[in-house]
Amino acid sequence: MDKNGKISPAVIRRLPKYYRYLGELIKLGITKTSSRELSEMTGFSASQIRQDLNNFGGFGQQGFGYEVEHLRVEIAKILGLDKKYKLIIIGAGNIGQAIANYTGFYEADYEIVGLFDKNPKMIGLSIRNSEIRDIDELEGFLNKEHVDIAVICTPKNVSQQIAEKVVSCGIKAIWNFAPKDLNMPEGVYVENVHLNESLFSLTYYYNNLNNKE
Amino acid sequence: MDKNGKISPAVIRRLPKYYRYLGELIKLGITKTSSRELSEMTGFSASQIRQDLNNFGGFGQQGFGYEVEHLRVEIAKILGLDKKYKLIIIGAGNIGQAIANYTGFYEADYEIVGLFDKNPKMIGLSIRNSEIRDIDELEGFLNKEHVDIAVICTPKNVSQQIAEKVVSCGIKAIWNFAPKDLNMPEGVYVENVHLNESLFSLTYYYNNLNNKE
Repeated sequence: MDKNGKISPAVIRRLPKYYRYLGELIKLGITKTSSRELSEMTGFSASQIRQDLNNFGGFGQQGFGYEVEHLRVEIAKILGLDKKYKLIIIGAGNIGQAIANYTGFYEADYEIVGLFDKNPKMIGLSIRNSEIRDIDELEGFLNKEHVDIAVICTPKNVSQQIAEKVVSCGIKAIWNFAPKDLNMPEGVYVENVHLNESLFSLTYYYNNLNNKE
Repeated sequence: MDKNGKISPAVIRRLPKYYRYLGELIKLGITKTSSRELSEMTGFSASQIRQDLNNFGGFGQQGFGYEVEHLRVEIAKILGLDKKYKLIIIGAGNIGQAIANYTGFYEADYEIVGLFDKNPKMIGLSIRNSEIRDIDELEGFLNKEHVDIAVICTPKNVSQQIAEKVVSCGIKAIWNFAPKDLNMPEGVYVENVHLNESLFSLTYYYNNLNNKE
């Protein structure tokens, strides 16, 4: 936690990993764990894990460790996974369709309530019972329906314009897959998935591995 | 740089962003830039940017800034984007297809040389001129062809097993989309894209924005 009482982004990035590993422990029938065991699973140090969890009050007892199920429920609450979220996907190309079809989200309560595209060949088709609508209906839709998160899967030349439109309709959370950073007002949170950058990092390390040989 | 002369992962994560922004400057016809200008574009501090680039020798002249084109070429070289890479995609479901169709990679020289799936309905179909092969052909393929990077887009219950198979065939770089960390030997680099975790972080910040109101 910093001096303003804000949790550092690095901690927030680790919480979903703890959540995932705790889920795996539950599947294995394990009910108790320790920061040392979590350290072996996650690769983060035991003291790092204790420090991260202490930001939210601890949840463990010295010498007794953590109740797996309880800790997972608490982390879910911190992340907000105990609530429901309505998502729309803008851009029903490959990435948009992959997101619409992705089954990994169904652990938590995310519902895709709308898909939008500008390609007339796509409009009217359905993905998982959700019809692809004309992008021109986006504003009307947002003015009528409650939506929590907009997923932007458009080409990068229109992503800023689309983001501004959804924000003008009250959207405050954007999951951005377009390979361009969005310039957004205060009070809007953007989470970027830049696949290119991920592949470029991998390329660097691949070359570095080779250089060592 | 740490005391072993290793560049920190955070620096490596920022390099693709510098690369991308420099590309945007080139498109705008801008030939000179400064750490201050790059700071405004990227959101990283000017001193951070100078420090990052100093890890590799600097590239700038005090008071003169950076030559955009030169700096981009140098960053490309550091990342290894001046070379060619052959990729295979394992798992031709939604994510695998999205990666196979993703046009964002073509800036650099990544070639998808093979697609593998175990679903008989998929085998034989083509994505961008690349035929989907039977997963049973994977080992034979890797023993015959040179492949740099394996992209794992399988369900999580088989990802570890598939990763072990490709590593046993000599693969040293894995781009992992299965929502489970891989346990790999030294000398293999894994870059994870865990979409779930990205969405969970977004959910946290979304709830936090709401709480502040």
